[in-house]
Order: sequence, then structure tokens, then C-alpha cells
Amino acid sequence: MLEELKKEVYAANLLLVKYGLVIFTWGNVSGLDAASGLFVIKPSGVAYDDLRAADMVVVDMEGKVAEGKLNPSSDTLTHLEIYKNIKSVCGITHTHSKWATVWAQAKRGIPALGTTHADYFYGEVPCTRDLTDDEIKKEYEKNTGRVIAEAFLGRDPMSVPAALVASHGPFAWGRSAVHSVENAVVLEEAAHMAYASATLKEGILPMQKSLLDKHFLRKHGKDAYYGQK
Amino acid sequence: MLEELKKEVYAANLLLVKYGLVIFTWGNVSGLDAASGLFVIKPSGVAYDDLRAADMVVVDMEGKVAEGKLNPSSDTLTHLEIYKNIKSVCGITHTHSKWATVWAQAKRGIPALGTTHADYFYGEVPCTRDLTDDEIKKEYEKNTGRVIAEAFLGRDPMSVPAALVASHGPFAWGRSAVHSVENAVVLEEAAHMAYASATLKEGILPMQKSLLDKHFLRKHGKDAYYGQK
Amino acid sequence: MLEELKKEVYAANLLLVKYGLVIFTWGNVSGLDAASGLFVIKPSGVAYDDLRAADMVVVDMEGKVAEGKLNPSSDTLTHLEIYKNIKSVCGITHTHSKWATVWAQAKRGIPALGTTHADYFYGEVPCTRDLTDDEIKKEYEKNTGRVIAEAFLGRDPMSVPAALVASHGPFAWGRSAVHSVENAVVLEEAAHMAYASATLKEGILPMQKSLLDKHFLRKHGKDAYYGQK
Amino acid sequence: MLEELKKEVYAANLLLVKYGLVIFTWGNVSGLDAASGLFVIKPSGVAYDDLRAADMVVVDMEGKVAEGKLNPSSDTLTHLEIYKNIKSVCGITHTHSKWATVWAQAKRGIPALGTTHADYFYGEVPCTRDLTDDEIKKEYEKNTGRVIAEAFLGRDPMSVPAALVASHGPFAWGRSAVHSVENAVVLEEAAHMAYASATLKEGILPMQKSLLDKHFLRKHGKDAYYGQK
Repeated sequence: MLEELKKEVYAANLLLVKYGLVIFTWGNVSGLDAASGLFVIKPSGVAYDDLRAADMVVVDMEGKVAEGKLNPSSDTLTHLEIYKNIKSVCGITHTHSKWATVWAQAKRGIPALGTTHADYFYGEVPCTRDLTDDEIKKEYEKNTGRVIAEAFLGRDPMSVPAALVASHGPFAWGRSAVHSVENAVVLEEAAHMAYASATLKEGILPMQKSLLDKHFLRKHGKDAYYGQK
Repeated sequence: MLEELKKEVYAANLLLVKYGLVIFTWGNVSGLDAASGLFVIKPSGVAYDDLRAADMVVVDMEGKVAEGKLNPSSDTLTHLEIYKNIKSVCGITHTHSKWATVWAQAKRGIPALGTTHADYFYGEVPCTRDLTDDEIKKEYEKNTGRVIAEAFLGRDPMSVPAALVASHGPFAWGRSAVHSVENAVVLEEAAHMAYASATLKEGILPMQKSLLDKHFLRKHGKDAYYGQK
Repeated sequence: MLEELKKEVYAANLLLVKYGLVIFTWGNVSGLDAASGLFVIKPSGVAYDDLRAADMVVVDMEGKVAEGKLNPSSDTLTHLEIYKNIKSVCGITHTHSKWATVWAQAKRGIPALGTTHADYFYGEVPCTRDLTDDEIKKEYEKNTGRVIAEAFLGRDPMSVPAALVASHGPFAWGRSAVHSVENAVVLEEAAHMAYASATLKEGILPMQKSLLDKHFLRKHGKDAYYGQK
Repeated sequence: MLEELKKEVYAANLLLVKYGLVIFTWGNVSGLDAASGLFVIKPSGVAYDDLRAADMVVVDMEGKVAEGKLNPSSDTLTHLEIYKNIKSVCGITHTHSKWATVWAQAKRGIPALGTTHADYFYGEVPCTRDLTDDEIKKEYEKNTGRVIAEAFLGRDPMSVPAALVASHGPFAWGRSAVHSVENAVVLEEAAHMAYASATLKEGILPMQKSLLDKHFLRKHGKDAYYGQK
């Protein structure tokens, strides 16, 4: 089932290697089939070199394996919670990419300091609150997805398609598995630049609101004019 | 028209990939044909892998497409403004290269701290002032070019062939498209070194004036003695 | 003798090059044959390009060469002391990998700041005390192994399979030569992230205890559920 | 003349590219033929891709070209001054490698913070004083060599085979052209580590004297026991 989506999710997982976002098995990409409510995800702990499209695991909205011989990613229930809570998301990428993780370990959101950031993220990429000890002990992976959703209360998560989980690392999403990887790549670059700008200039402030608007909206939304028609 | 220049500008755009200055479609190089007042520039949002010399767009000094099926770079009017305001420029490179962008995000010019910088840039590489909200809302790309020119009032922009646009990133220029890329590469290296020197030594001061003179002038100008005749 | 182990240790040494942990001859991996009490180690000062499996040196628990024409690594007696003092270790990796060495030079242990660290190291990776001048002058290599063991008094060295030697660099270990290299790779990544998080946020604190428990124990121990069965 | 030395110096220059120490034409290696007092050096401003062994320039101890059609490196008179002033040097490498240059721009010597440094450099790698304006205006390249020699008054430059020229970059030397490149590679690595250790730990102090002695002397001098006989 969902053979095309498996191929797409498989290819998206390999992009993590291409873009240098993962070491060993540290990352996973999933893709949602909105029609059936099933999603496809990388199996847990399998090396990228050994991975095949056929190994992808199909999971339903209860978190049960609908097809596949391998265990799905240990982060599966976090993916599930994001799909449930954030409308329009059809792909999710989780990594421990270096610079986004650096901010997550510092428990700080990544401020919008320049147009590189603004071209993809319409404002600060938030960092979640700490989970409580109880939330960690029971339903840890599900609760991780919940605090991500919580970090977007009053904001549109499709205009800031990523979050940092405190003391953990980044999740990025998008309209497809491949889009979520693209957002994860940009997040990593923006995180590195923001680290360096923040250590170069103490008390650095976010960019002007009007410039943030200009850059995000020239690439996204109804009046976008970047790229080809 | 301008088939040779298209090939040169195409090749110069690919150098951005070779030297690691770009991710995805984040950069563009243009080249001016001084005789006709037309310039050739990368199309907007096209991946470097898919780019062909024939895709290059020819633009006139009014900012209108003189030849080409694709939209020119969204930064085209900034290139145009630089060609209009800075005499002798025949090539321009714009990127979001990491370390130059770090300084742009900190809204600080890159000080001349050593001979690596001085061999190419005769003093600090300036950072522009912020655009006003009005300048951002109307004619944003044109105004970006204007504040670059403004940053060189009283200075010779051909002896400091680059500027940082605040909260954005670097523009570099030169006597040809390829020269502008070379200057962008050096700018990136100088920006990285300056970041590290500035974080290693608080309150770091620019290099001696006499050493700056020596290095810039042994490579540039009538008494240059670096390289082969 | 121990031809299979020689091949394994040889291959593990080459992984140091693959993962970018070494320059020139700066690193060595050994593997223990628990049954005979002999271990196999890289010869001293031989370039990785010139290395062959047959060059591996077999050493006994007195530190004497049991087989091999070349001198064993100058760090052999440190490996020996670790094998003697830390039960269950069957592989040891020593490198001067950049970021772990940065912490060793600062004489600071690497704090557990996030789940990347917690997935492999159950708490801070300790830094040894300084050796005394006498310990350096006499039996230096052996004493280096001793202060590593000393750093784990009251802790389980198999749940934190690495240590930093002050003003020197990291040693990592594991259930085999290859596992020790894997731990050395993770240590390097965790060290880099911790450096950046610590310079981004002054006075950074270790992660929550409950999160550290959750991540270490979901990958290790009897209730582990990461990966495939 | 000196065809073998030309090949060696040519190969040593290409090592600068292999080890990532240079961009464009920013670096040069020379080698001395002690018997004749002639040295061989890279021509000025020639790209490494275009370089051939036959392009190497032979220079005498007066700084005159003894053989070769191309101009020698613009740094030739600095090399010459080092050969004149530092006994036993038969190879010199000059680069603008990133991390060594970062320290040079901060006008700080690189402290001996760990055994990586101590294995090659017996103490701090010094940074020269600033040249006076007069020294820059007249005989600049020769005076650069002089302040390097001056930085070693009372120290043995063969046990610390490198120096940083203030606001400029590193020079390294050795018993041959290739050895000088090896020392330049180690210097760059030690410089990067020292930068990070110093920014991680304010007021960091050099390593213990006894540990510095141990590591330098186990690799160098009459009682060395590192490597193979």
C-alpha cells in the first residue's frame, strides 16, 4: 500500500544524508497520505546505507502499524501528534542537526535576524517548554508532539514550519516529506548564522518587522513574486 | 544576443556552487555589457543543477527584460541600481554566504584586521543603514541598491568592492562577473576570520594604516608588484 | 594469532579516517580478546594509508609484545590500564578529535545538555584531574589510564563510555573496537554542540534528570525499545 | 638546476591544497639547498591548478633569481631572511590558513594548551611585534623575516617551528619543504582548538610544564620513543 509515498519518503530520508543533517541513524522523515489518514515513516535504528523504500513503515492515526515488518521510528508518536494538531502538514522531518540542536540545548528559540530566515520562517522559530517529569515518564513521544503544538498557540505553524524541542532538537514540517526536509536544511543554516550573529553582538535584536514581512510575503502567499510562474 | 556574456555569467553562477557560497537557489551573478548598457542575470528561483547558459536573462537599464523567457532574479533591480551608481562595475554577485551574512545580521561592517582582507579590500567593508519602512514597502529592491551606493559616499567603491546589506547579506562586484565572484569568495573568508578574531579579542582594532596601504597597493594600482606581468 | 581480531581492529582504525577524527597518525584503536587476555593495537606512528591488518601488534596484560614486528602505539600502556580497570571493555579508541580536545584543554567535563548526548552517555563525560609532575615523569602512559579509572569512582564507566584526559584529549571505549569508535564519533559531535550551547548561553545547566533517564534507558538496558529486536 | 628540489617544493606546494590551507594563490612553500645556498620557491600569483614543477624559481642568498622565467613569490625576501637567521631550516611554508590567521589578527601568540600542540611545538607559538611604519614602507618583506627572527630571541626556533606575523598570518618551517607543510597543518589544527578552548574558558592558562616536556621530548630529541626506529 502507498507504494509511491514510500518511495517519496525513502528519498526524503536519503536527503538527510545528502545535506549533512544526520550521523548514523539520527533522523527520520515521514509523509502523510491525507486521503487515507495513514502516514509512512522510516523504521527505527536502520542505517541509511541499508535502507530500502520497501522498509518504510505505514502507520495509522492510532499509532498502529498498518503495514511493514520493522518497528517504526521511536519518534513515530511525535510525528502522529503533529499531523493531528497542525492542519495542512503532509511531511515531517526530525533530526539532531548540529546548529538547530545547539539552540534547543540552550532552550532558546531562533530569532529572525535576517532575510535568509525570513524567506522561510515568518518570525522566531520557537523552542518548546520543558516537559514535566510526568510527561516524560508517560507517553513521552506523544507529549513531545503536544508541546510543539502548544508552542504555536496564537501563531500559524505553516508560516513558521519548524520548532525546537528543548534539550532535544528540531522538528520541521511542510506540504510534503521533501518540503519538510528543505525546511530542515534552511533551519540548520539559519541556526548557524544566528548563533554566530548572537555571539558576535551581545543583545542582538530581531530584524525590522517590515523587512520580515517583505521577504516572507514575496515568496509566500497570494502576492508572491519570487521564482517562476 | 550577448551569447558570450551569457556563457560567462552562467559559468560565474556555477562558481557560487563550487566555492560553497550558496544553498538551493540563494545567490545570483550578473554581468554588464558596457557598450550596450544591457546586463545578463540568473533567472529567479532556478536550481543551479537545472541552469543552462541559454536561461540567462538580458535586462536593460530600465529594468525591462530585453531577452529571455524566464523571470530574472528577484534582486535584478538591486543589480541595476549598483550598475547605475558605481562606475566601472561590470559584474555583481549576491549571495547569503554564511559568514558575511553573520556580520550583516549583526549590522556591522567587516573591519580590516589583516592582510588577507587588505589584499582585496582597502579598508572596512561597510554595512548599509536600515531601510525605512517606506523604502521597504515601495521599490524595495531598487532602494537596496541605493543604500549600498549611499554607504560609499566619500569612498571609492572599486577599492572596497563589496558591501553588506543590513539584516540581509553581501553584494560584491568587480570588473567582470567572475571577478565579482572572486571578491565574494574573499569576503566570505575575511568575514569568517574577522568573526573569530573579534570573538577571541574583545574590542579588537583595525590593522595599521601603513600595512593596509602596503598590501592593497602591492596588488592594485600603478605600482603593484604582486603576480606576473 | 588473533587474525580475526587484527582485521577488526585494523578496520576500526580506518574508521577514524572515515569519520574525520584524525590527522596524520594521531589516533589509535585497540581490541581485547577477553579469553586470552591479549589485545591488538595499532603500531606507533604509522600513517593510515600505509597500515595493513598484518601490522597490528598483539600485546599481553604485562604490556609486552606477544606478536608483531612494529612498536605498538605509544599509548599502549594507557589502553592496558583501562582494560585492567574497567570491566566489560573490549575496545578502546584514543584520538585528538577537535571538539572533545577543546574541552580537555579547558579541563572541563562535557555536560549532558541534550538527548544526543543522553542517547549514548548517561551523564557528564568527566575530565580527569591533572597528573602530578611525578606521575608524568614516571610511568606516564600507565598513570594516564589510572586517572581515567579514578574519574569513574562511584560511577559506572560502561554507561558513560568515554573520558577526557586533561590538557590532552578523549578516550572512548565499548564492547568492541568498532563500538569504541562509534562512541568516539558521538562524543565529538556532542562536544561540538556543547561548546556552542555553552558559548551561546552563559551558565548553561545540564538537562533534566528525567529526560536523561528516558533517553539513555530507551536505548540501553533491559527496557530499551529503540531500534529493531 | 636543482631539479629534484624543484619537484619536492612543487609537491609540497600542492600539499597546501590537499590539506585545505589555501584559497586561490594564497600560500607558498620554499626549500633550501644548503650546499649551494640556493632556494627554490613558488612563482608569484600562479594558481595551483596551473602550477608545474618547472615553474619553480631558484633564488640566491642575495634575493636574486638564479633560474626561472617567472617572478618568485612576493614573500621571497621573507623566506630568505628566515633562512639567513634560523639555522637548520631547509623548508618554509607561508599561508593565510584560517585559524592561525585569526590569532595573528588578534596579535596573540598561540598558547600551548594541550598535547596536540606539545607534540610539535615546545611552548607558545609567538606572534611578532607590529612592524613600524618605516619598516613597512622600506624593505617590507625583509623586515617581516626580521621580526620573526626577533620573536625567537632567547628561544630555539627549531623546537617551535612556526610564528605568526601580526595582522598577517603564519610562517612555519622545518628540516625540509614537506616538513614545513606538516608543521603548518598542525599549527592550523592547534590554532583552531586553542581558539575554541580560549572562548570556552575565559583566562585559560597554558598546560603544565612537565606535560609539555613529556610530550615534546617523547617525539623529539635523543630520548624520543614515539614511532618506529
